[in-house]
Amino acid sequence: MGNITVAELAKLLDSEFIGNGDFVVEGMNSLLDAKENDASFIVSDKFRNLLNKTKANVILAPIVLKGMLPDIKTYIYCAQPNVTFAKIVKLFAPHPPEYQPGIHPTAIISDGVSIPDSCHIGPNVFIGKGTIIGENTKILFGNFIGENTRIGKNCFFYPNCVIRERIVIGNNVIIHPGVCIGSDGFGYEAGPAGIVKIPQVGIVRIDDDVEIGANCAIDRARFGVTWIKSGVKIDNLVHVAHNVEIGESTMLIAQVGVAGGSKIGRGVVLAGQVGISHGLNVGDGAKVGGQGGVFEDVPAGKSWMGCLAEPVKDFVERSMLPGKFKKLAARVLKLEGANRTYQDEPTKTEK
Amino acid sequence: MGNITVAELAKLLDSEFIGNGDFVVEGMNSLLDAKENDASFIVSDKFRNLLNKTKANVILAPIVLKGMLPDIKTYIYCAQPNVTFAKIVKLFAPHPPEYQPGIHPTAIISDGVSIPDSCHIGPNVFIGKGTIIGENTKILFGNFIGENTRIGKNCFFYPNCVIRERIVIGNNVIIHPGVCIGSDGFGYEAGPAGIVKIPQVGIVRIDDDVEIGANCAIDRARFGVTWIKSGVKIDNLVHVAHNVEIGESTMLIAQVGVAGGSKIGRGVVLAGQVGISHGLNVGDGAKVGGQGGVFEDVPAGKSWMGCLAEPVKDFVERSMLPGKFKKLAARVLKLEGANRTYQDEPTKTEK
Amino acid sequence: MGNITVAELAKLLDSEFIGNGDFVVEGMNSLLDAKENDASFIVSDKFRNLLNKTKANVILAPIVLKGMLPDIKTYIYCAQPNVTFAKIVKLFAPHPPEYQPGIHPTAIISDGVSIPDSCHIGPNVFIGKGTIIGENTKILFGNFIGENTRIGKNCFFYPNCVIRERIVIGNNVIIHPGVCIGSDGFGYEAGPAGIVKIPQVGIVRIDDDVEIGANCAIDRARFGVTWIKSGVKIDNLVHVAHNVEIGESTMLIAQVGVAGGSKIGRGVVLAGQVGISHGLNVGDGAKVGGQGGVFEDVPAGKSWMGCLAEPVKDFVERSMLPGKFKKLAARVLKLEGANRTYQDEPTKTEK
Repeated sequence: MGNITVAELAKLLDSEFIGNGDFVVEGMNSLLDAKENDASFIVSDKFRNLLNKTKANVILAPIVLKGMLPDIKTYIYCAQPNVTFAKIVKLFAPHPPEYQPGIHPTAIISDGVSIPDSCHIGPNVFIGKGTIIGENTKILFGNFIGENTRIGKNCFFYPNCVIRERIVIGNNVIIHPGVCIGSDGFGYEAGPAGIVKIPQVGIVRIDDDVEIGANCAIDRARFGVTWIKSGVKIDNLVHVAHNVEIGESTMLIAQVGVAGGSKIGRGVVLAGQVGISHGLNVGDGAKVGGQGGVFEDVPAGKSWMGCLAEPVKDFVERSMLPGKFKKLAARVLKLEGANRTYQDEPTKTEK
Repeated sequence: MGNITVAELAKLLDSEFIGNGDFVVEGMNSLLDAKENDASFIVSDKFRNLLNKTKANVILAPIVLKGMLPDIKTYIYCAQPNVTFAKIVKLFAPHPPEYQPGIHPTAIISDGVSIPDSCHIGPNVFIGKGTIIGENTKILFGNFIGENTRIGKNCFFYPNCVIRERIVIGNNVIIHPGVCIGSDGFGYEAGPAGIVKIPQVGIVRIDDDVEIGANCAIDRARFGVTWIKSGVKIDNLVHVAHNVEIGESTMLIAQVGVAGGSKIGRGVVLAGQVGISHGLNVGDGAKVGGQGGVFEDVPAGKSWMGCLAEPVKDFVERSMLPGKFKKLAARVLKLEGANRTYQDEPTKTEK
Repeated sequence: MGNITVAELAKLLDSEFIGNGDFVVEGMNSLLDAKENDASFIVSDKFRNLLNKTKANVILAPIVLKGMLPDIKTYIYCAQPNVTFAKIVKLFAPHPPEYQPGIHPTAIISDGVSIPDSCHIGPNVFIGKGTIIGENTKILFGNFIGENTRIGKNCFFYPNCVIRERIVIGNNVIIHPGVCIGSDGFGYEAGPAGIVKIPQVGIVRIDDDVEIGANCAIDRARFGVTWIKSGVKIDNLVHVAHNVEIGESTMLIAQVGVAGGSKIGRGVVLAGQVGISHGLNVGDGAKVGGQGGVFEDVPAGKSWMGCLAEPVKDFVERSMLPGKFKKLAARVLKLEGANRTYQDEPTKTEK
């Protein structure tokens, strides 16, 4: 977009400003990384001391702070500065690559495929027979889409993904590079002649507004469906096993793994590298801290953490044991009438 | 296949049935997900209460339960209902995609490559010079196969994998999308002029009946061989470092990582997200629980778990310390003659 | 290269040898895997007992051990036998695949791309408009390079990677198969109408001599830069989130995850499966043990480990609690005048 004055920006945002309306904003950045001609934002009064440190001369600030901030910057007031900021940062960003409607001549389209004219199908894409794609969907370079798969409107698939057969994908779904959807679930059974692979004949269903990070793997169901519900956001390198269900607007941060058949509620947050064992329920709104290992059901609304995850309260109690132990040992020493004080006990013989 | 009567199904399975032989089975599903016209299965008497809950009217049941199950369903008796079920579920599943013999015109085949007529080589596949492929092997879209690699019979490689040079792969090997086999091991040495990359000139050898999940990475050896032995099953997003050996029929669940030079025995199970440090031995038949961090050898047949994994018995002891500590602290209080009872001690000063 | 005599090899290395100069070396291997005609190496006196076990007849040994090793082998003396070994192992390895200069006819090169004649651009590669590539860089099969990206000299990109738009990559960078660089950071904000995706308009900058393992994912910055500094080595399946900075010569072992905005110093080692929470600082030269979960800043030069990582000393103290607890409980029993000795207390009622 290029440059814009404070007055123009405030008008665009239907907001009030206090300060220099002619000042030209050239970019957007965080408070600490901003340069003099950047605009930045402050979410709450808690960060007001950063106003002395930032080089940004223009600050989006919450309406509730109007008149309460130091006179050293030009302020544009809005209800949610972070959300407004997210919207307008695009104005200053370089144009994103454009993917025009059309099917690249190197794309391989099988029989019975339905692709509206509004779609972009990039170079070296393969689309299997009977697959149906919605309006305005963009499938970039090197994607493999299996047969009889259904993809909704306004989806965006980055390069080199593999979406296997009979997958059902809703609208506005974003899939980052290298993702695999619909791989066989990990299922074997001990038969008389050794390990037997259990056929994985189910599907994956992905509802509207889901986003899936780079190099994730989401397995198809044994039978039935592995189901990622609307608004779920999945970070990079996440594993979702067969027959898992993930509720609306849940977030799986990077490298999370969810084992077979577990049901994750809506509005759940699983932090980075969390593992959920198989066949569990994680209730609506629950949170599990980074690297948590979940081996039993997590009740709705609860926060758990730790290797063999447990309620945060129990985790904290466990974490403080070494300190408590030292104190107790000192008291025992005293009771024993010893005239030495407790120090670290000899430990070599203990193991 | 479509629909089939109970009598026809029992005949197909060479099994006896009790109940309505004319009932038409339309699909197969698990007890809890089945609809009225589905068949399902019960593994043992332990699950008999589910018979009241399932909608399925036809149940595969173990012969040993003949005559012992409630009169509310039609039963087909077999030795191992789960194994039988796995076989016949295919009959009701949609036909899997078919990959006909032949080499797609967009595939790039280098000099000196040997590909039998029975093979399927998909679109946009690259095969490097001197590579030899066995009968009936299917290599789907977008695979890169390096030079002088050997691939056995009846293998199935899903799209977009990278198999580098001089890899040796046996028969009946299944490789899911996005897998990399033969990447350089992670090896560096501090030289006088900084960090020096150690050449990784070894290979990867993968024996018969191995299956490797989506987006796994298996490094070639420094020299010698990274060796995945027959019947090993590897789930998604697993990392196998250089010079690792994995014994027959061992299972690595999703997101496991095995560091350089470790030897995993046969029949081992490493649960999800387990990490094995470098140069260790995990004995035959050992099991490590989810997220276990293994920093010392695990003896054959033992079950370990925990961050800094240890025998399950030790892990349980450690887990119960907070409860035990409270009781002991209460006893110390009593010995001290205090007239207050033990409650959570003040903790703020302890850290 | 083929075979070489000990005398020729010593001359090539400008080194002295003691033993049979006419002995023909046919390969290189580790002490334990070597065959009779292989050369191997010993790093220090600590491993001298392996000289009795190895079949290798020729040993590279440190100069400081000259004359001190048993008379059963031929020795070639050098300052750093491991480094020398790494150099000469290439002489005996099969020739690596050769990627000749030129652009494969199936490659798709957009407008305004700059590719020197010395580069190799493999089959099915896509290069977006305005992208600039340095001398001698090799981009193998199936890579997608976005628009306005800059790639330096002597880089080597293995097949099927995705490098998005506006990425900046230095010289001598090696990228293994399936890597994604420049995917959107994981950023959302709760707006009035639900979860809003925060635009990720920044870039990724990768400096000289970086190596990135198979199937890694490195996110672009929200704005500004995700920055991997020179000499950083990244193993397989690593996740680097938006706005992360990684200092010179730092090593991230397999399956590490670094959350958004964290700054990792120079010369740091994060062992396998370590997770670093967001917004943290890990000081220069710090080390975190395998699976460590880092939730607070790690001071420079310190070694931390454990789930909820902590200084190694604290971790060890915590690990020894079960043993110490037993001893203390026995002493309390004695103080109580009990005539039974401490054994495992009944535990069923404790939870």
